Amino acid sequence: MKREQFPLSRVYQLIEPGPVTMVTTSRDDHPNVMTMSWHMMIDFEPPVFACIISDQNYTFSILKETKECVINIPSEELASTAVKVGNVSGSKIDKFKKFHLKTEPASCIGAPLLTECYANLECKVIDMSMAQKYNMFILQVLTAWIRPKRIRLRMFHHCGKGVFVADGKIIKLPSKKL
Amino acid sequence: MKREQFPLSRVYQLIEPGPVTMVTTSRDDHPNVMTMSWHMMIDFEPPVFACIISDQNYTFSILKETKECVINIPSEELASTAVKVGNVSGSKIDKFKKFHLKTEPASCIGAPLLTECYANLECKVIDMSMAQKYNMFILQVLTAWIRPKRIRLRMFHHCGKGVFVADGKIIKLPSKKL
Repeated sequence: MKREQFPLSRVYQLIEPGPVTMVTTSRDDHPNVMTMSWHMMIDFEPPVFACIISDQNYTFSILKETKECVINIPSEELASTAVKVGNVSGSKIDKFKKFHLKTEPASCIGAPLLTECYANLECKVIDMSMAQKYNMFILQVLTAWIRPKRIRLRMFHHCGKGVFVADGKIIKLPSKKL
Repeated sequence: MKREQFPLSRVYQLIEPGPVTMVTTSRDDHPNVMTMSWHMMIDFEPPVFACIISDQNYTFSILKETKECVINIPSEELASTAVKVGNVSGSKIDKFKKFHLKTEPASCIGAPLLTECYANLECKVIDMSMAQKYNMFILQVLTAWIRPKRIRLRMFHHCGKGVFVADGKIIKLPSKKL
């Protein structure tokens, strides 16, 4: 699927609205993927954000060791796949095979891009000092990719207990400094 | 406006989808309010979450000193007000007067609840060790309030550059452990 590079200065526009994301990692040529939506921006440029990945997740140990991952942002067509990916551990099965996930190599890290996602952020871990206490990783985005838009794609957000909400209508309210 | 107490175990359902929020604080009987959407859940119960509040914001110094705030979650009817609140500093004007914001006393902290918001989370700061490096505050929710729903209210999310997206359709995908 065709992708374009996305300006690092605009990455906050992808993370800030709080979409469900899929995190890909790789260790010893074995890729893994999990679903994650506890994340927040920390700084605009270079784009830095935090995320919470439980030490109960297989991804936790891979991320701690390899210090790199891709944050893939799916649109609503992938909601059902994202939920399935979130409900099983990659320590037991190959989720890429099981859920027919296509991947492509990233440009500057070892973890793969999820082909069908709307956007992909290649990230390195820059701070793990809060990993033990809060399961928190601080990530810097090295390269960002986006699928060229023909139609507006809608992200989706987790509201708990199997309920998600897709993006709805756009509200334009240009900022006017008083 | 009538409110109900909201179970602490379900607070993550309000924060995780990434809504725009309005943060109220108070120092020496002077309340303040700012708009904020860089936040993420850290733990379910007691509900703990992180947020980024720039040291350029008036709220930063108040929060550092008082260690308490209310995270108010507006629905889309308040989008225009939230943007206006976000574009001026409370060090210069009384934003409650200027924007006709009604408030009520909180139950266990000094900062006020915004009456017209859908939900209000009374919070205390439990960790400021990342405030200097990342402008990050770790908050614990002490009490949560919600407006009883007659109709489904839609939150909204910031997508940057004056563009917001309101919640759209609900997707139900109950979690099934494989």
